[in-house]
Amino acid sequence: MPLTPEQQAEIDDARANPRPTLRAVAEGMERHLYVAHPVLDHGLIRVIDYMGDDSAIVQAARVSYGRGTKAVSNDEGLIRYLMRHWHSTPFEMCEVKFHVKLPVFVARQWIRHRTANVNEYSARYSILDREFYIPAPEHLAAQSKVNNQGRGEVLAGAEAQRVLDLLREDSMRSYDHYEGMLSQDGQQGLARELARMNLPANIYTQWYWKTDLHNLFHFLRLRADAHAQYEIRAYAELMCRITADWVPLAYAAFEDYRLGGTALSARGVEALKRRLAGETVTQETSGMSKGEWREFEGVWG
Amino acid sequence: MPLTPEQQAEIDDARANPRPTLRAVAEGMERHLYVAHPVLDHGLIRVIDYMGDDSAIVQAARVSYGRGTKAVSNDEGLIRYLMRHWHSTPFEMCEVKFHVKLPVFVARQWIRHRTANVNEYSARYSILDREFYIPAPEHLAAQSKVNNQGRGEVLAGAEAQRVLDLLREDSMRSYDHYEGMLSQDGQQGLARELARMNLPANIYTQWYWKTDLHNLFHFLRLRADAHAQYEIRAYAELMCRITADWVPLAYAAFEDYRLGGTALSARGVEALKRRLAGETVTQETSGMSKGEWREFEGVWG
Amino acid sequence: MPLTPEQQAEIDDARANPRPTLRAVAEGMERHLYVAHPVLDHGLIRVIDYMGDDSAIVQAARVSYGRGTKAVSNDEGLIRYLMRHWHSTPFEMCEVKFHVKLPVFVARQWIRHRTANVNEYSARYSILDREFYIPAPEHLAAQSKVNNQGRGEVLAGAEAQRVLDLLREDSMRSYDHYEGMLSQDGQQGLARELARMNLPANIYTQWYWKTDLHNLFHFLRLRADAHAQYEIRAYAELMCRITADWVPLAYAAFEDYRLGGTALSARGVEALKRRLAGETVTQETSGMSKGEWREFEGVWG
Amino acid sequence: MPLTPEQQAEIDDARANPRPTLRAVAEGMERHLYVAHPVLDHGLIRVIDYMGDDSAIVQAARVSYGRGTKAVSNDEGLIRYLMRHWHSTPFEMCEVKFHVKLPVFVARQWIRHRTANVNEYSARYSILDREFYIPAPEHLAAQSKVNNQGRGEVLAGAEAQRVLDLLREDSMRSYDHYEGMLSQDGQQGLARELARMNLPANIYTQWYWKTDLHNLFHFLRLRADAHAQYEIRAYAELMCRITADWVPLAYAAFEDYRLGGTALSARGVEALKRRLAGETVTQETSGMSKGEWREFEGVWG
Repeated sequence: MPLTPEQQAEIDDARANPRPTLRAVAEGMERHLYVAHPVLDHGLIRVIDYMGDDSAIVQAARVSYGRGTKAVSNDEGLIRYLMRHWHSTPFEMCEVKFHVKLPVFVARQWIRHRTANVNEYSARYSILDREFYIPAPEHLAAQSKVNNQGRGEVLAGAEAQRVLDLLREDSMRSYDHYEGMLSQDGQQGLARELARMNLPANIYTQWYWKTDLHNLFHFLRLRADAHAQYEIRAYAELMCRITADWVPLAYAAFEDYRLGGTALSARGVEALKRRLAGETVTQETSGMSKGEWREFEGVWG
Repeated sequence: MPLTPEQQAEIDDARANPRPTLRAVAEGMERHLYVAHPVLDHGLIRVIDYMGDDSAIVQAARVSYGRGTKAVSNDEGLIRYLMRHWHSTPFEMCEVKFHVKLPVFVARQWIRHRTANVNEYSARYSILDREFYIPAPEHLAAQSKVNNQGRGEVLAGAEAQRVLDLLREDSMRSYDHYEGMLSQDGQQGLARELARMNLPANIYTQWYWKTDLHNLFHFLRLRADAHAQYEIRAYAELMCRITADWVPLAYAAFEDYRLGGTALSARGVEALKRRLAGETVTQETSGMSKGEWREFEGVWG
Repeated sequence: MPLTPEQQAEIDDARANPRPTLRAVAEGMERHLYVAHPVLDHGLIRVIDYMGDDSAIVQAARVSYGRGTKAVSNDEGLIRYLMRHWHSTPFEMCEVKFHVKLPVFVARQWIRHRTANVNEYSARYSILDREFYIPAPEHLAAQSKVNNQGRGEVLAGAEAQRVLDLLREDSMRSYDHYEGMLSQDGQQGLARELARMNLPANIYTQWYWKTDLHNLFHFLRLRADAHAQYEIRAYAELMCRITADWVPLAYAAFEDYRLGGTALSARGVEALKRRLAGETVTQETSGMSKGEWREFEGVWG
Repeated sequence: MPLTPEQQAEIDDARANPRPTLRAVAEGMERHLYVAHPVLDHGLIRVIDYMGDDSAIVQAARVSYGRGTKAVSNDEGLIRYLMRHWHSTPFEMCEVKFHVKLPVFVARQWIRHRTANVNEYSARYSILDREFYIPAPEHLAAQSKVNNQGRGEVLAGAEAQRVLDLLREDSMRSYDHYEGMLSQDGQQGLARELARMNLPANIYTQWYWKTDLHNLFHFLRLRADAHAQYEIRAYAELMCRITADWVPLAYAAFEDYRLGGTALSARGVEALKRRLAGETVTQETSGMSKGEWREFEGVWG
C-alpha cells in the first residue's frame, strides 16, 4: 500500500517526538511504533500502542505467587514455567493495539477471535477505497485433492491468467458500479449501507485491533500455522516477528511450547512408549483411526 | 427461501416426535422449534434449541437473594425489578440457539456481538449457493442527507431500476465466474478459499448462533432500534416476536424498560425538572450541544 | 448435606413430571436432572438444565463444513476429529446449568473461569447457614516439601486432632458471633453485608453455574487434574462422570485427547525423536531446564 | 497500609526514572503511576500501567467513521456523541492496570466483573499477612429496615463496641490459629491451601487488575453508585478520581451521561409527558408498581 505523503508525514511526525513516561518501555517495540509494515498487495500492519514487556509478565506472576517465586532463579525460567503450565493470566497483563489493513475475507476469519477490541472502518458511514487483493501468481493454487480446506498445486498458464483476469475485472467493475450507484450526479444516490453490498470479499477494509498477549498467542498459534489460509498467515507471521521484538522471552517460550510443540493423545502416548520399548506399532494395533495415524506418522515417522 | 423437500421433510420429522423431558419447557417456544421463518428474500431464522423460561430467571434470582426474595409477591414483579435494576445475571440463565440464513454484509454487523457462540458455513471448505439479497423496491433508499449512516427517500423510476439491474447482474456474473474458477472441467480448479473472494457482500451465508437471554436482549436493543440498518432489523424484529413467545414476562419488561424507555443525561434531567417547574428551557440555557438538544427535543418536544 | 424434607419433595415432584419437548434429549442426562449428588461433607452438585447432546455437536459442525463433512463416516469420527484439531465452536453449542454448594475458598478458585454465567447466594441480602467444610482426616495433609502449591503427607496423631479442633471451634465461634452481631434482640443488629466479613473461607455458599461444553471441558482439564487442589477436584471429578453420561462421544474424545494426553515442546519432540533413533538423551543434551526435564521424565521415563 | 521502606524505595526508584516513548502519554496519569493511594484501613490502589488517552478514543472512532467524522468539530463533541449513543468500542481502545489491596469480601464482589484480567496473590502458594479490615466507627451500620441489601443507622454505644471487639478478636485469633497450623515447629505443618480456610472474609488480599476503559466505566457506574456497598464504593470513588485525571473528556461525558443520568421506562416517559402537559399523575394512573413509583418519585418528586 503506497502511503499518501500526508500519512507518511503524520507517521514521521509521531516518530520524531518521544515523550517521557514512567511506564515500562519495550525498546524493541518502540522501533515498530506507527511504522507501516506492508502485507499482501495493499495491506499493512502498524503497531499503534502497547502496554508492558517481559518484566510485566514476571511482575504479575510474582504478585500471584508471592514470596514463593523468589525460588525461581530468573525471568526466563519463570516465563517458560508459566507457558509450560498454561498459567495464562500473567501473559494477559500485556496488551497491544494494531492498525491493520486487510481484505474482507481475511477480516471475516480474523473476527472470529472474540477476545479482542475492534474498531473497523464503517462502510455504512463512509466510502471504501478502490483497493482489492489480487493474489500473486505463486499463491494462485488449485483446490487440494486431500484436504477439503486447503490448496494444492499452483495454477499455471492459461488457467492462471484467466483467474487473474476474472478477479481483476470483476473487482474493477463492481467498484465502478458501487461508485455509480453512490453518485449524486443527476440522481439521488443510493445509501452507502446498501451500495456496499455490491463489493466482493477481496476489497480491503481496515481496523484497529487490540488484544492481550495471551490471546494474541492463541491467535498466532492458529493463524501462523501451516494449515491456516495463506492470506491470514501472512499477517500472523509478521505479527510473530513484531511480538518477538516486543517480548523476546515470552515469544521464545511460545515458539518452543506452542508453535514448535505438539500434542499427544493418550493413544499417542501409548504408541510412542511402545515404540521406545522397541515394539513396531501399526495403525491397527495403535487404536487410532486412519486420519489420526496419518497425522501421528506425519510427526513421528 | 424455498426449502427443499428434503429439508421440509426433516423439519416435519423433528416436529412430529416429541420426547419426554424433565427440564423446563416453554410451550410458546416449542411451537417455533425448527420452523423456518422467512426473512428478506432468501433468508430465514429457525429456533434450534432453547434452555429455560421465565421461571428459570426467577429461580436463579431466588438462589441469589435467598429467603429475602420471598417478599416479592410474584414472578412478574421480580422480573421487572431485575430488569429495572440492571441485574443481568438471572437473565443469563436462559439460552437460545438459532439457525440463521443471512446476507454476508448483515453477518458482518451481527458478528460484532462477541458474547455468542457461532458456527458459520465455511466457504473454505464448501461451495456457497447462488443466493443473493436484492432489496425490494420499497427498501431501495437514497443516502440520508442528515445522517451519515442512514437512509433517506426511496429511490424511484430509472435510478431504482438501474440499481436493481446492477445488483442483479453483478451478483449473477460474479457467481458465474466463481463457479467457472472452481470448475475442474479441463482445468485444475481454483481453491475454494480463494475463489470465494470474488463473491459480493449480498451473497447469503448461514450459521448457528447461540447466546443467553441477557446478551440477546442487548443485541435486540441495538438491532431492533430504528437506527439499525433495515436488513439486520428485519432479523431482530422477528427475533423479538419469538422471544416474546419464549419468555413473555421478561420480554414485556424488556419492552418497557429498554425498547420503549429512554436515557437522560444529568443535563437532560435538569432541563426536564426546570420544565416541570414551569420554566422555558432552550438549547442555550440547557448546556447541551445542538445535537444533544435535537435528540432531547425528539423525545420531549 | 442432608436435604430438608421440603427440598427432597420439590426434587421428587420435578422428577415425577416429564413433559413433551421437541428439543434434543440426552437420556443419560435426564437421569441426573435435579438429583443432589453429595460432594465433600456438606456440598452438592445438581444438574438443573442442559441444552444439546452429541448430535448437536455434529449438527453444528455439519453447518460449518457443509456438504464436505459427508465424507466423515460417523459421529464418533467427526467428534474426535474436532477435538483433535481444536475446533472448539461445535462444542460450544451444548450448554449445561449446575446448582453447586461449595466452600467459599473453592468458590474463589472456581470463579476465575470467566466464561460462565453465575448467580451466587448473596450474603448482603440473606443470612448464610451454619455449614462449614471440615476436611476428612485422610485429606488433612502437610505442606508439600517439593511443590509450593501442593500437599505432602497426611497429618497424624495429635497434630491432626489439633488442626481439626481448631477448624471446628473457629467455625462455630465465628458463626456464633455472626449470629450475635446480626441479632436484633435488644440491639439494632449489624448490617448483613458487614457481619458476613467475620465468616471464614470454609463456610459453604451456593450458586447456579452455567457454561458451554467447550468451556466446561477447559474447566475440567484444569480442575480434574492431579495438580488441582483436592477440594475443587472432588467437584470436577463428579462433573466428569455427569458429562460422560450427557455427551458420551465428546467425553471419550476429551478423555483421550485432553485428560489422558500430553503436550510436548519443540525440545521435547526432538528429545523423543533422538531416543526413538536409539540415542541416549540427558538433561544436559536436551536443552531443557532441570524442571522441564523432571516433568519430561515423569511422562517418558 | 504502611508501606515498608523497601516498597517505598522501589516506588521512588520507578518514579525517578522517566524513559522516552513514542506512545500516547497522559500527563495526568503519569502523576499517579505507582503511587500508593490508601483506601479503607489497610487497602490501596496504585496505577501500574495504562494505554491511551482521550485522543486514542477519538482516533479509533475516526478509523471507524472515516472521513465522515470530520464534520464533528472537536474531540469533546465526538467523545460526548460516542458516550450518548452507546458506541462503546472506541472506549475499549484505552486500557489500565491497577494494583489493588482489598478485603476478601470486597474482592468477591469485584471479581464478578468478568471482562478484566486478574492476577491475585495465591494463598495456596504463599502465606497471607496479618491484615484485616475493621470498619471505622462511622461505617458500622445496622441492617436497613427498608432495603434487604443495605445499611441503616450507624451503631452506637455498647453495641458498636461489642461488634468492633468481636471483629478484632476473631480476626486475631483466626490468624493466630492459621499461623499455628502452618508452623513446622515440632510438627509437619498443615498445607497452606488448607490452612487458609480458617481466615475470615475481612482479611486483605491483593491483585493486579487490568481492564479497558469501557468496562472500567461499567464497573464504576455500578460500584460508585449510592447502592453499592460502602467498602467497594471507597475503591470505586478513588478510581473515578484517577480516571478523571487520565481521560478528562471521556470521564466528564461518563459523569454526565451515566453517573448523573437516569433511565426512564416507557411508562416513566409517559408519566413525565403527562406531567409536562399539566396532568397530575399518581401511582395508580401511571401503570407502575409501588416500587417503581417510589423510585420514580425519588428522582422526579
